[in-house]
Amino acid sequence: MFDYEDADELTKFAKQIEDLIHRKQYAQLRDLLLPLEAADIALLMMESEEQILPLVFRLLPKELAAEVFVELDSDQQEMLIQGFSNVELKEVLDELYLDDTVDIVEEMPANVVKRILRHSDPDTRKSINEILKYPEDSAGSIMTTEFVDLKASMTVEDAFKRIRRTGPDKETINISYVTDAGRHLLGLVSIRTLLFADDSEIIEDIMETNLVSVTTLDDQETVAMALSKYDFLALPVVDTENRLVGIVTVDDAIDVLQEETTEDIAKMAAMAPSDKPYLKTGVFETWKARTPWLMILMLSATFTGIILTKFEDSLAACAILTSFIPMLSGTGGNSGTQASTAVIRALSLGEVRFGDLPKVLWKEFRVSIICGICLAAANFVKMMLIDRWMMQNPDVTPLVALVVCATLVGTVLCAKLVGCSLPILAEKVGFDPAVMASPFISTIVDSLSLLVYFRFATLILHI
Amino acid sequence: MFDYEDADELTKFAKQIEDLIHRKQYAQLRDLLLPLEAADIALLMMESEEQILPLVFRLLPKELAAEVFVELDSDQQEMLIQGFSNVELKEVLDELYLDDTVDIVEEMPANVVKRILRHSDPDTRKSINEILKYPEDSAGSIMTTEFVDLKASMTVEDAFKRIRRTGPDKETINISYVTDAGRHLLGLVSIRTLLFADDSEIIEDIMETNLVSVTTLDDQETVAMALSKYDFLALPVVDTENRLVGIVTVDDAIDVLQEETTEDIAKMAAMAPSDKPYLKTGVFETWKARTPWLMILMLSATFTGIILTKFEDSLAACAILTSFIPMLSGTGGNSGTQASTAVIRALSLGEVRFGDLPKVLWKEFRVSIICGICLAAANFVKMMLIDRWMMQNPDVTPLVALVVCATLVGTVLCAKLVGCSLPILAEKVGFDPAVMASPFISTIVDSLSLLVYFRFATLILHI
Repeated sequence: MFDYEDADELTKFAKQIEDLIHRKQYAQLRDLLLPLEAADIALLMMESEEQILPLVFRLLPKELAAEVFVELDSDQQEMLIQGFSNVELKEVLDELYLDDTVDIVEEMPANVVKRILRHSDPDTRKSINEILKYPEDSAGSIMTTEFVDLKASMTVEDAFKRIRRTGPDKETINISYVTDAGRHLLGLVSIRTLLFADDSEIIEDIMETNLVSVTTLDDQETVAMALSKYDFLALPVVDTENRLVGIVTVDDAIDVLQEETTEDIAKMAAMAPSDKPYLKTGVFETWKARTPWLMILMLSATFTGIILTKFEDSLAACAILTSFIPMLSGTGGNSGTQASTAVIRALSLGEVRFGDLPKVLWKEFRVSIICGICLAAANFVKMMLIDRWMMQNPDVTPLVALVVCATLVGTVLCAKLVGCSLPILAEKVGFDPAVMASPFISTIVDSLSLLVYFRFATLILHI
Repeated sequence: MFDYEDADELTKFAKQIEDLIHRKQYAQLRDLLLPLEAADIALLMMESEEQILPLVFRLLPKELAAEVFVELDSDQQEMLIQGFSNVELKEVLDELYLDDTVDIVEEMPANVVKRILRHSDPDTRKSINEILKYPEDSAGSIMTTEFVDLKASMTVEDAFKRIRRTGPDKETINISYVTDAGRHLLGLVSIRTLLFADDSEIIEDIMETNLVSVTTLDDQETVAMALSKYDFLALPVVDTENRLVGIVTVDDAIDVLQEETTEDIAKMAAMAPSDKPYLKTGVFETWKARTPWLMILMLSATFTGIILTKFEDSLAACAILTSFIPMLSGTGGNSGTQASTAVIRALSLGEVRFGDLPKVLWKEFRVSIICGICLAAANFVKMMLIDRWMMQNPDVTPLVALVVCATLVGTVLCAKLVGCSLPILAEKVGFDPAVMASPFISTIVDSLSLLVYFRFATLILHI
């Protein structure tokens, strides 16, 4: 097992492979690779020179080769497929699980897809085409149709026979699903239940009938959250008439959770989400994902500019006020970010819902008052001690400090209230709450804090 | 299955339960709850009045009651335990899996822990005490010691007999572990392999010996990432002498991944991470988690203040420059946030390592140049069209626009380079890269962008 942080070990291993290939010591190479997990061999292949991939691939036993194939990047998969003979392609496809084949097909260019479909057996081809019809990110698009199905009238002995006969091609045998003649989902039975039952017991009597299922069109995130919430190993997927069409297994659910979190984090940082790893995303693609929001946020900062221009005279009358603007808007932005981030994560974990808005507001109100007062007190001391006394700046009068500190409390209050409510409101009207994160809120809070600042300045300093 | 977003359904159901209790219709209540999943009953209990919990709990069959118990908040668990008779406590404890008992014990006050340990059977008590010894967030602290172990010399038939005999108390029977007389881990065998093997085959011949294992002191995140990477259902945990001491199952790995992500997100928003849900965290606790970073960031904004004071004369000579400061620092902050967030996530997914720093810098350099030029162009047009022509502000000259736009390019460049490199450097020296996220970087970038701004202003406007 390669540690993520231990790049040295990986590079050393990759060098060793290249070395063995150059010296044509294929038997040793095979012995070196065989004890590794497929995911690790794939990692090694991504570290090595590209041209060795087909060679290594052909050295591995068929089953392991197919497992490695699934773990590779789509670029490398395409390169391999392009180099495969028809017989080789068919062999690899026969070893793959259906949901993995679909994942690969989704990433390939049209000519490769055609070739894959031509060399899949007719049943698989039909299933691939079925799954490809479901919308992206739906339960249907991530499910596999390779599950064990049983009949309610079977005995446990029959069930074991069926599992032994059909199981080898199935993604999991840990859970079997019980359907009627019309393929409607009636229940499920785990391998554990089967093992602890008598051979003569009837499936109907031991199956679990309180089922949690999802429909083909449910969002993949809903499916993943359900698997995580109930600690299931697989979840049945039914169509609108409760006919069982597939299952989603827990390993795919983990991938979905990771992927959705990465998307959320990207959106929270004002970027369009990408489904490629950071280093695999091209410069142009990264630029495309980042510029639109930067542009929108830059142009919306026009408002803060207008406010500043409007109060140009006040600032001229008391120039020292300008030097505290970055601190005020920074603190406002950070306070807002804290509230919005906490609420966005709570929303995505299902801990907070729209009905909780008053509770959330009341909590953030109290937090922001204590936070604001603490910060204001610290800031007052700092302005008097450092700015006035140590840096000998006579412009920093106690009254100026009072204006700045009062603004701090007001800014933190505004920032936290805006920060906690916008994501909840966004979700209610069907927007993605993650977009309401820090950059967006900072822009709003910037304007608000300036307005508060000049209000207090006018009131206290009479300018 | 309750949808996370569908709060109405949940509230309606909770009301129905309270109603049945007030009318003392316990049989109906039991029928209403029985078809539900334990996680959903727990969700309902958290929505309902607190005093009905013990009543509902006693209505449920023992096994389901124990499952619900595990899903409750620690506050509610404590309340229930306080109300349990000794016999009841023992019954619940007997139904719990060991790792769940440990999780509960970790959250309870000392007197409750003592009571739990007193009523656990001696073997369980010993195991609990063992697991409690491991450091928080280590593999040892999240593992369970309830796994199926086999001997290499057993036949498949023997193995099935052992699984049937010892399995009912085990967390999973999907994978069995093969150990020698000294409890050293030799291999593993899945229930699938056992089912497809002949009864007379010897475990040694069919077991998987290329093992991925973790040690008790490995970080829980390493364990979870390994389970996710290799698509395993469980991972063996060994001590320093390769003796098998426990296993971590995939459901716990999902919880760890979610928890660690929540922590990362909190840190990225300049908050101390909390392991409680948002609404369960008290005002004081939230304040404590948020104030320190706000304070540090506020005080570090002193530098920007000093820079502004230093250039007070330049600003007085060309007052319009002030009004673009928020836009510049906002854009700088946002650009930096994008780069740092993308890199932090890539680090935590293992996609980027220290050795990739030059690649990352080169990528961000190119992205920032294109981004900067686009933003500068848009901003030039906006300043000329809106600020000068529409708002009729004669102070916005093409030369001023040039200063602002040149600063934009410089700021975006600085921000992206600082943003992408700080998290990588932080990880290298052993700090948490998540802390290097937006708020921290904004503060640095603010100062840099002001310096660039006044440099260009001096150069171009000769002030």
